[in-house]
Amino acid sequence: MKTDVVVIGSSAAGMVVAATGKRVHPEKDFTVVTKQPKTMIPCGIPYIFGSVETSNNNILPAEKVFEQAGIKVIHDVITKIDRKNKTCELKSGDKLEYDKLVIATGSTPHKPTWLKGLEKNNVFFVPKDKIYLDDMQDQLKDCKDIVTIGAGFIGVEMSDELNKNGKNVTLIEKMPNILGLAFDKEISEKVEKILKERGVNLLTGISVKEIVGSESAEGVLLDNGDILKADAIIISMGYRPDVKLAKKADIPLNDQGFIRVDEYMRTSDPDIFAIGDCAEKRDFVTRKPNPVMLASTACAEARTAGMNLFKLSVIKTFSGTISIFSTAIGNSGFGVAGLTESQAIAEGFEIVTGYAEGIDRHPGSLADSHQQCVKLIVGKESGVILGGEACGGLSTGELVNMIGIVIQNRMNINSLFTAQIGTHPLLTASPAGYPLLKAVENALIKWRK
Amino acid sequence: MKTDVVVIGSSAAGMVVAATGKRVHPEKDFTVVTKQPKTMIPCGIPYIFGSVETSNNNILPAEKVFEQAGIKVIHDVITKIDRKNKTCELKSGDKLEYDKLVIATGSTPHKPTWLKGLEKNNVFFVPKDKIYLDDMQDQLKDCKDIVTIGAGFIGVEMSDELNKNGKNVTLIEKMPNILGLAFDKEISEKVEKILKERGVNLLTGISVKEIVGSESAEGVLLDNGDILKADAIIISMGYRPDVKLAKKADIPLNDQGFIRVDEYMRTSDPDIFAIGDCAEKRDFVTRKPNPVMLASTACAEARTAGMNLFKLSVIKTFSGTISIFSTAIGNSGFGVAGLTESQAIAEGFEIVTGYAEGIDRHPGSLADSHQQCVKLIVGKESGVILGGEACGGLSTGELVNMIGIVIQNRMNINSLFTAQIGTHPLLTASPAGYPLLKAVENALIKWRK
Repeated sequence: MKTDVVVIGSSAAGMVVAATGKRVHPEKDFTVVTKQPKTMIPCGIPYIFGSVETSNNNILPAEKVFEQAGIKVIHDVITKIDRKNKTCELKSGDKLEYDKLVIATGSTPHKPTWLKGLEKNNVFFVPKDKIYLDDMQDQLKDCKDIVTIGAGFIGVEMSDELNKNGKNVTLIEKMPNILGLAFDKEISEKVEKILKERGVNLLTGISVKEIVGSESAEGVLLDNGDILKADAIIISMGYRPDVKLAKKADIPLNDQGFIRVDEYMRTSDPDIFAIGDCAEKRDFVTRKPNPVMLASTACAEARTAGMNLFKLSVIKTFSGTISIFSTAIGNSGFGVAGLTESQAIAEGFEIVTGYAEGIDRHPGSLADSHQQCVKLIVGKESGVILGGEACGGLSTGELVNMIGIVIQNRMNINSLFTAQIGTHPLLTASPAGYPLLKAVENALIKWRK
Repeated sequence: MKTDVVVIGSSAAGMVVAATGKRVHPEKDFTVVTKQPKTMIPCGIPYIFGSVETSNNNILPAEKVFEQAGIKVIHDVITKIDRKNKTCELKSGDKLEYDKLVIATGSTPHKPTWLKGLEKNNVFFVPKDKIYLDDMQDQLKDCKDIVTIGAGFIGVEMSDELNKNGKNVTLIEKMPNILGLAFDKEISEKVEKILKERGVNLLTGISVKEIVGSESAEGVLLDNGDILKADAIIISMGYRPDVKLAKKADIPLNDQGFIRVDEYMRTSDPDIFAIGDCAEKRDFVTRKPNPVMLASTACAEARTAGMNLFKLSVIKTFSGTISIFSTAIGNSGFGVAGLTESQAIAEGFEIVTGYAEGIDRHPGSLADSHQQCVKLIVGKESGVILGGEACGGLSTGELVNMIGIVIQNRMNINSLFTAQIGTHPLLTASPAGYPLLKAVENALIKWRK
């Protein structure tokens, strides 16, 4: 069979590249190849264990999008990309001839080889696989004590949701603070406080040496010699790009194992694109490869690729990737865009920081008001905003997106200080005490010295 | 008495200019002259009639800010500015010698001379005056049927809060839609729908000819000849700059009656600044005088003035004013930044628009999710984003602030399309369906044709 564009994968990246590409190039045939008929909303996965109750409430609308757009879907697995003949071989034995190919194969959970006992029953990972997750949810029903290893976003969110669902959860992190790769200490500590108040047990600065038990996991052996009993262990120690197909087809990878791409998501083969978790990203600020895996980043890449499949229609003015993370614990939101203070220092930037607190409503006596905090990281000599972190209520996600737009526009401290924002009693902090701008002022006063 | 800096007024602008100025110039004496000891949070005023219950819950923290910063406060009224001798004369008979003077006298409600009956009892305005508002609140207690004339933000918010408080409220607007100066029709209609569902009666496209009654108002005569009975009438027909002092001192005003200022809020007198509602603003996009009055704009001006009182320390890279409005009705938020479609067309811009809808959580089955919509206004030849409107839940305020940062950075459709945002199930729309970016795509596809 011949088709103009083949997309491998139907998660956020695959869905968006096909939909965008078809909207822009309605005259071309698009075919998506995906294993399972139902694809999970990736960032919603922790919430199927609590807030949204079942994976059936967390399905990407990919099928509907494809059908409405006239995009063909094949439920099969591609076993080989034949670049010379521009065909894909399918498990079913069929072949699919392409003009342009987009690899959106995503990532799989990291399974650390040094950690003994991963093969035991009741040891779970968090893949983006509905069948696996449904089975896992089923098995967790009878478990009371759960240990989560690794306190990145997935570990934190899984722990909070399982705790909300009545489990006794202990979250173990070898770094001194949870979410330590995303936030500076002062923000991580705020998340820790809320998690503890909600009943999640935290063990930080401690490593797991081994998963103990016989056939089934019975607990974990910690590096201080203690054994923590548990009915189930959840491993949330990051993800690795799924690049098997690309590797087999000799498409070059970078040193971190991601598929090498240019700014327009083109691999070294001019007819093959790679997007999402499997594709290389360069940091917007540091220009180094950045192993970040975010659905929002994947979708940005998918939009760029979809627009530029056949010629460069949309110029990417922002070169590189900015990481914007956000999460919520209960009604409290936390987020970060760009570099944290510790990352900036590690990269060799000389910086000043600005910090301010306020209330995300005004007057603060209004219902559902939260303490809001903003920390900004500013290049000392350039005055350029390199990063920002925020906490507050549920508007924190968009507040951090605003900081993201600030960073991507390379705004400096002077421009941001004189920029205008809008405020409203029920929606934002007060105009006089708006923490983002107070943090700029705080940095500016230090910066001028 | 001699002081380095005199600030006239202690509302948002006066408070922020004094606080910022003192932080940057700790060696200077700052003196604020203000009439009443307690200053209202201006944008919180409608909420004292409902959500926050009393004006005492809506006080600016000016006193505390001044005390902590070592800023002197005089409760008095300045009757004259003597520019030659650089002194202010006070009602008490004292004189205040200044080096730099900041006029932050704000605005007062517009009282249209063509509307008969304004002098009757039970006809109210909405000034930023605690004593007046407390008295008004007291008198409204016994009123059941209330008519609000003028459906700008204050009229809409007052009507909704009084309705929430059990009053039978009718909001009358002569334009075809409420909030018609702020939003395009499609967004105004969404606000109208919610207001009606909440029980506010709306009369649009109808003018009030006269307030009827004898000593006390008993209703309004409409231009269709009907009489609408009411126990109280609230006039919310805009505000006018309070420039009495400036006028008396021969400080030049612009054609709209605002004090003329440059980008750094300096009047024609090099030692006198004017900020906030009484000061001229130029539109960031159209470059025309813009009579917008917003606490957030006032605070931006106050920060700029405070930093630049004695020399130009902070360069204002964004020239002009961008209006960013937001409001909330119940749990729904609405906002706008920059030009609307109708404003852009009236200004002679050739434009394309982009529109998209989505859900502000993902999956949409999560609690408290709202339909979110974004409309973007894009210059047809330049591709520059001129304005944006949004509706959704309570994160709409920060979403619109993000659009404000987009506009102020003169981002074009191409840059915004390839920009990155962050998403989270509990905080934002989905990465694949994020309405801001879908609206860009929608505009981009039209724009490329």
